[in-house]
Amino acid sequence: MALIVQKFGGTSVANRDRLFNVARIVATTRAEGNDVVVVVSAQGDTTDDLIEKANEITHTPSKREMDMLLSTGEQITIALLAMALDTMGVAAISLTGWQAGFHTSTTHTKARIRDLDTERIENELSKNRVVIVAGFQGINRNEDITTLGRGGSDTSAVAIAAALRADLCQIYTDVDGVYTADPRLVPHARKLDVISFDEMLELASQGAQVLNNRSVELAKKYAVNLEVRSSLANVPGTKVKEVVPMEGMLIKGVAKDADIATVSVFSVPDKPGMSFKLFSLLAQKKINVDIILQSSGRGDCRDIIFLVPLADADAALSTLEEYMPTIGGGQIVVDKDVAKVSVVGAGIQSHSGVAAKLFETLYEENINIRMISTSEIRISVIIAKEDADRAVNAVHDAFIH
Amino acid sequence: MALIVQKFGGTSVANRDRLFNVARIVATTRAEGNDVVVVVSAQGDTTDDLIEKANEITHTPSKREMDMLLSTGEQITIALLAMALDTMGVAAISLTGWQAGFHTSTTHTKARIRDLDTERIENELSKNRVVIVAGFQGINRNEDITTLGRGGSDTSAVAIAAALRADLCQIYTDVDGVYTADPRLVPHARKLDVISFDEMLELASQGAQVLNNRSVELAKKYAVNLEVRSSLANVPGTKVKEVVPMEGMLIKGVAKDADIATVSVFSVPDKPGMSFKLFSLLAQKKINVDIILQSSGRGDCRDIIFLVPLADADAALSTLEEYMPTIGGGQIVVDKDVAKVSVVGAGIQSHSGVAAKLFETLYEENINIRMISTSEIRISVIIAKEDADRAVNAVHDAFIH
Repeated sequence: MALIVQKFGGTSVANRDRLFNVARIVATTRAEGNDVVVVVSAQGDTTDDLIEKANEITHTPSKREMDMLLSTGEQITIALLAMALDTMGVAAISLTGWQAGFHTSTTHTKARIRDLDTERIENELSKNRVVIVAGFQGINRNEDITTLGRGGSDTSAVAIAAALRADLCQIYTDVDGVYTADPRLVPHARKLDVISFDEMLELASQGAQVLNNRSVELAKKYAVNLEVRSSLANVPGTKVKEVVPMEGMLIKGVAKDADIATVSVFSVPDKPGMSFKLFSLLAQKKINVDIILQSSGRGDCRDIIFLVPLADADAALSTLEEYMPTIGGGQIVVDKDVAKVSVVGAGIQSHSGVAAKLFETLYEENINIRMISTSEIRISVIIAKEDADRAVNAVHDAFIH
Repeated sequence: MALIVQKFGGTSVANRDRLFNVARIVATTRAEGNDVVVVVSAQGDTTDDLIEKANEITHTPSKREMDMLLSTGEQITIALLAMALDTMGVAAISLTGWQAGFHTSTTHTKARIRDLDTERIENELSKNRVVIVAGFQGINRNEDITTLGRGGSDTSAVAIAAALRADLCQIYTDVDGVYTADPRLVPHARKLDVISFDEMLELASQGAQVLNNRSVELAKKYAVNLEVRSSLANVPGTKVKEVVPMEGMLIKGVAKDADIATVSVFSVPDKPGMSFKLFSLLAQKKINVDIILQSSGRGDCRDIIFLVPLADADAALSTLEEYMPTIGGGQIVVDKDVAKVSVVGAGIQSHSGVAAKLFETLYEENINIRMISTSEIRISVIIAKEDADRAVNAVHDAFIH
């Protein structure tokens, strides 16, 4: 008898038939003798519909009230799924984020889990009930409802699996595993049987949509065995583990992230602490900055260029436009027509030829590289957005056969 | 500076424009220097839409999960109203039932308020915020979300007004006050400027939809000054008070309740405690029984006839059909084609001619009376449902000029 956490996303619970499909998966897992905790997202378009309701009122809603509004989405799903399991004779109980013990930071819409008090979940499991938890949400120290931001339900599931020392955390989605590239984009993309946390982390943070990087980080930290699999087809998915046997594959995946923008800041005075101040201003606005390039400087100034999420580009621009005049800095230019293409694999750190082969492949495709960033197991290039799909296919063909 | 509780029902907050209309009423009250607590229901059809979602899953959903599901309706409204007030520069904060301190009994879908912990509400008021509370809902001692049942938002509003010793509790609705009869039914119906708690209580419990009787009971118990008024027209409403000056009106209103059924139980053995057992069984199922008639008995049996809410008629039937054979009782007949027509007024207790005039009026209309029930300030008759509208008009014409 094992304890299994199963997470189902919005498309997996989008309507009555999908909900019963999920209920059947849960009931089967239960019938095999396992304890089950289920984490669910809001149904299909529910979150978008709620955002639309808010937009009818104001385009700058309070983040606290957005959390109050959006957290109803998962609450609807948990109640409906508990009802569906009940009709199948499976004892089940739904819990909101706060009932399930998710205590978070106070930052609304992007809260982080501070502590998970599993008393209620364990209590319900001891009554032989399937416990259905609303993902994506928690409560802060003011007793206000918070949400965890993008991919939050994955994080909720992994957090429960970690806290309960679950044997397995299954992330059910609309694809049947982790692929070497987006199959909609690259026809030859292959499904991986297994991938390491570090490789998954690089793929996730480089734009592969299948798993959110916060959830993979958490799984790595607490050594939670993850499995990404399909809620629609009953086929083995991709296991994400700490140590992965060598498979002879140098590169595990090619990822594209088109939801980015470059911000170029010209003529920043070359004084100590100046770039620190600039980035701490962005950090205060919760804007994540990625891949920073700094020119070697001409005269007493430097140019700085970096990436931000596309959604934060305008906020970054206005923040800097307010700040730059106070330090005598120059122009700020935002370019939203860019994309990041990354190759990921543990083999990169031991094979020196990967970077050369990547650049050669792009050169042959006549694709211009604007910025480069590397880690031990990843190489990313920033290119024009219009070249991105062509680049992903060419790179995948070059590295994965 | 006064403290005013304002409650707005589902039609008053049904869409963006209605929400801003409510926000303007609240903002005006605030601008006049008052502290304001707002209680709202779910928007328009939201509750019906959620019930439909549940019905797609099962027609016998768990009541706990129904409460989990339906409580999202008010939570959506409070967030949107807080956003609307924010756009008008009025500081506001939304609170769910449990955040607002509503502790209830454990009975799902029909919970009763056990205790209201006003610490959070008072804390937010002290920060000069309008506090927007989700009506209809609370939390029980298991930390499960409960709902208060029909008219629950009125009860929430009065409970807050009582606990905070508010100066006034305004119930905003889609009519502009309490009428002597339903104006859609009786063209000559008059709006009352003032009515006593007892008269309002009788009108509410006899089917006048404008105020739920639980909320009036609570207002009477804690001497909360109520006002029923329109959210759409800025005209004085009807005040509900403890003591009402004589206005020379014998009858304050004529009410119709068509959501009832009669249950006839034949041949109940005439033994001590038998009818007590029968009604305690119904009480266990939370079925309210009204107007009980018991035949004087023939042989060792009696017939018992009583009223139940229409929605509970089938449950009453199945409960009794299970029980009657065990005591050798006879047939059970449910009649759903009945209605209750009531005249209400403090004058009834001091004027002996009211009953006679009522019966004469119905006789002249050729309407057959099946059952009669009286209190000090009310006379009700049970008649065929098809006669009800004609009866209300005839009785209104006879008593109210």
